[in-house]
Amino acid sequence: MKMLPGCIPCLVKMAITTATIGGGNEEQIYQSARSALKILLEGNFQFPAPYFSAPILRKVETILNQPDPFIKQKRVSNQAGLKLAQELAKPYVEKAKNSKDRLLRSLRASIAGNIADYAVVPDLEGKIEDKLREAFKLKFSCLDFERFWKKLRGARRILYICDNAGEIAFDRILIEELSNFKKQVIVAVKSGPALNDALVSDALEVGLDKIAGVELITTGQAMMGLDLKSAGRELKRAFRDSDIILAKGQANFECLAGKNGKIFFLTLIKCQALENKLGLKKGSAIFASGDMLNAMFGNLK
Amino acid sequence: MKMLPGCIPCLVKMAITTATIGGGNEEQIYQSARSALKILLEGNFQFPAPYFSAPILRKVETILNQPDPFIKQKRVSNQAGLKLAQELAKPYVEKAKNSKDRLLRSLRASIAGNIADYAVVPDLEGKIEDKLREAFKLKFSCLDFERFWKKLRGARRILYICDNAGEIAFDRILIEELSNFKKQVIVAVKSGPALNDALVSDALEVGLDKIAGVELITTGQAMMGLDLKSAGRELKRAFRDSDIILAKGQANFECLAGKNGKIFFLTLIKCQALENKLGLKKGSAIFASGDMLNAMFGNLK
Repeated sequence: MKMLPGCIPCLVKMAITTATIGGGNEEQIYQSARSALKILLEGNFQFPAPYFSAPILRKVETILNQPDPFIKQKRVSNQAGLKLAQELAKPYVEKAKNSKDRLLRSLRASIAGNIADYAVVPDLEGKIEDKLREAFKLKFSCLDFERFWKKLRGARRILYICDNAGEIAFDRILIEELSNFKKQVIVAVKSGPALNDALVSDALEVGLDKIAGVELITTGQAMMGLDLKSAGRELKRAFRDSDIILAKGQANFECLAGKNGKIFFLTLIKCQALENKLGLKKGSAIFASGDMLNAMFGNLK
Repeated sequence: MKMLPGCIPCLVKMAITTATIGGGNEEQIYQSARSALKILLEGNFQFPAPYFSAPILRKVETILNQPDPFIKQKRVSNQAGLKLAQELAKPYVEKAKNSKDRLLRSLRASIAGNIADYAVVPDLEGKIEDKLREAFKLKFSCLDFERFWKKLRGARRILYICDNAGEIAFDRILIEELSNFKKQVIVAVKSGPALNDALVSDALEVGLDKIAGVELITTGQAMMGLDLKSAGRELKRAFRDSDIILAKGQANFECLAGKNGKIFFLTLIKCQALENKLGLKKGSAIFASGDMLNAMFGNLK
């Protein structure tokens, strides 16, 4: 999906937030904003917004002399995520009456984790338990579960493209579930820092490597979402060889929503720009194939 | 007050909002965003954010070939403002038990009008009556009323610098009140379009010219807030010769907050950037002299 107009100021804001969270002084914060302005001014808006995160964040990291400004937040998110996933999401999934219901509950648990995105909602603390409980009950605005269920039966290999730290503790529940169906699950995280997106260190922290049948890889990229063309070899191979691709979070949605075929998206609508584009309210949940989305919303390329 | 970091993306957003409200097509909206990026990139952030509104809005107007993109919204705001001021604010003020209380109530009525800013909160319709009633009851976060009351006694001439269309219907109530104290009130509106800011046509629509003792002038500028250095001669003279200056709205606050002496600010805190800077919550109301503000918040230059 090409850059939406509303993404342009948001990317400038991202530079400022990152510089602030990374401990930048006033001068560094202004400089980070200027770098974002310059990169966007020179950029081609035919590309998805997350593509711009890579050059902007690299600039901010250089200005701060800090290779991973969100590193502390990610540790905190992972620990909070693990605790909440264990205490709230696990018991919710365990209540399922059969394996199909259990899978649907795991999808809800995973989407509940999508609200644990400190980069977007930094002041969730205190409210997060209530938010998670709400998320378990939410109605999907687009739900393509039957198609997924059907595809899953014949699938051998699933590529699961992760989103943020913290959230991956909830992804773990869904990934375990997929693995319980005797599927090979290839889990992709970023190869380098991109906001609070999960890296290998985060995947290890929440024990994604401990699940039977799981192979951990990286996208080969330090950007939000995924630029398939320039992705790493491992990711490209997994993308080609998997029977199902499960893309988590809004940035992956923005980058890949135009694709039909074996791809499914699991995300909340997190911003006004996408709300305007799709006509779905902020906070709406989507679990849908690219086919369904492109049929519903026209071509999302 | 110099540009806050958070104002930078907000000014890009302003260009997009203006292009959208002005009926721009997709290409014009992207072009408007790019113009804002360029102007900001080349800009000096030592100046207040509203200073950037002038060149950005001029560019957007040129791109749209539309000299006043908010013209329809302003008509609607004025009519809604007149109705609500008459039905809600007037009776609220009339309940006062003496002239001092009546003045304070007029100040509250005027600040209530500050929420009728469609550029910032475009979906207020339906909720606006409740919001206004709340506004009459609000506690000011900074209140310098006694100083104002004292100054008013000796004052002959007051300069009232207006903010938005719609809002000026509520300003009218306060301006009438000041005029009832037998003061000369010089009311300044913008000389050309700046978002939904009030122009002479708006002042006439709400009858500001009909009040005894009122002289209507323009700032000589088509920008949000006021750049005193490059303002028109009428404004400069009024600024110099008035005994009290009453600056309404956040943009005037941003431009003039560093000034001590005879100036008073009447505004709501409308954005996160200013909330962060002052440590006052979004929605907080201020009626305070520059002296009080600079004592409370350090130098706001």
